Amino acid sequence: MALEIPDVVIDRLPVYARALALLEKQGREVVNSQDLGERLGVTPAQIRKDLSYFGRFGKQGRGYNVKRLAQELRQILGLTREWSMVLVGLGQLGRAIVGYGGFAPQGFRIEEIFDADPSVIGTDITGHTVKDVDTLAETLQYRKVDIGIVAVPGDSAQQVIDALVDCGVKAILNYAPIAAQAPSDVRIKDIDPVLALQSMTFYIKSRESAAE
Amino acid sequence: MALEIPDVVIDRLPVYARALALLEKQGREVVNSQDLGERLGVTPAQIRKDLSYFGRFGKQGRGYNVKRLAQELRQILGLTREWSMVLVGLGQLGRAIVGYGGFAPQGFRIEEIFDADPSVIGTDITGHTVKDVDTLAETLQYRKVDIGIVAVPGDSAQQVIDALVDCGVKAILNYAPIAAQAPSDVRIKDIDPVLALQSMTFYIKSRESAAE
Repeated sequence: MALEIPDVVIDRLPVYARALALLEKQGREVVNSQDLGERLGVTPAQIRKDLSYFGRFGKQGRGYNVKRLAQELRQILGLTREWSMVLVGLGQLGRAIVGYGGFAPQGFRIEEIFDADPSVIGTDITGHTVKDVDTLAETLQYRKVDIGIVAVPGDSAQQVIDALVDCGVKAILNYAPIAAQAPSDVRIKDIDPVLALQSMTFYIKSRESAAE
Repeated sequence: MALEIPDVVIDRLPVYARALALLEKQGREVVNSQDLGERLGVTPAQIRKDLSYFGRFGKQGRGYNVKRLAQELRQILGLTREWSMVLVGLGQLGRAIVGYGGFAPQGFRIEEIFDADPSVIGTDITGHTVKDVDTLAETLQYRKVDIGIVAVPGDSAQQVIDALVDCGVKAILNYAPIAAQAPSDVRIKDIDPVLALQSMTFYIKSRESAAE
């Protein structure tokens, strides 16, 4: 089934799940696709279509049961369990990632940290001893991790990604500004602020043109 | 015209522009939607549909002229000019953003940096003197910036975003883990690693279920 669902649909599900979690916290019991769409900037038709890949959730004209849909989405996305992560690269970005408070509450735990800098290897950071990136394969041989976070400079990023893939890591969050390559059974997400900026400039430019 | 184009289409254009820039560098003269789609994980039909919003670029069966399409997309997205940015928050994440080498080559320049920490205010970082966030309105009154980057903790992020909006900033790159609010004429992009992780877990989970 999974193979037939477009990636863009899967990308929207966590956004729906987050909005529903917020509604749940606010005590809302029912929400329709119109209301949900307005909160998220997605058309109601798109929300209905996206959810239809996973079965029938709402009743015509009645909307969705917030709690039930939130639970179903968490189930579908695998958010009801814990996921282990390895971080490679402990420069300023890596330290920002370690210090980021958003992962743990959502079940994402950094369990191993690697770097190539001799002055950083062996130091402790939030309970982890930083290991030599050359020992990555060795370490992950005995300790399965689900997700790799790549926060190394661009020129060594592909090499690190290859090493993670060789260790059986099937999902990679890539912060390096490269178009990373991986086998088709490995998911890569690029966290690329430039792409985000480049789509926003379209709107500023359009507005400025319109005002001329 | 701009109002009728779905946001998801605009979000894909920078990805197309980047792939085309790479092809251009490699000396490719023509590319078809099939080939471009395979490189990007987008269906050829989607690429043709996305580009059709902006006119007719390719010839049936002949593919796109790489150089011309790359130029057109840069024009459409406003990537042929420089954009000025203000960074608010100079913690570890803020420092990683300042140190990130990907902005300047694409025409995005950080021109002002603000923080709330007295031990940071007044210090120099890559040629900028860090200013007190309380002087944001004052400074931006005399110096128009296009884009605000928000790298402050979640509990002060909305306040900073409101201040930027009041100063006339029309595009915000938000790194704080909040569902930020802004008027409809302001574009906000959340750089949220958790959402990226949450869509990848879908695939790991599906694969594990299939293997059972």
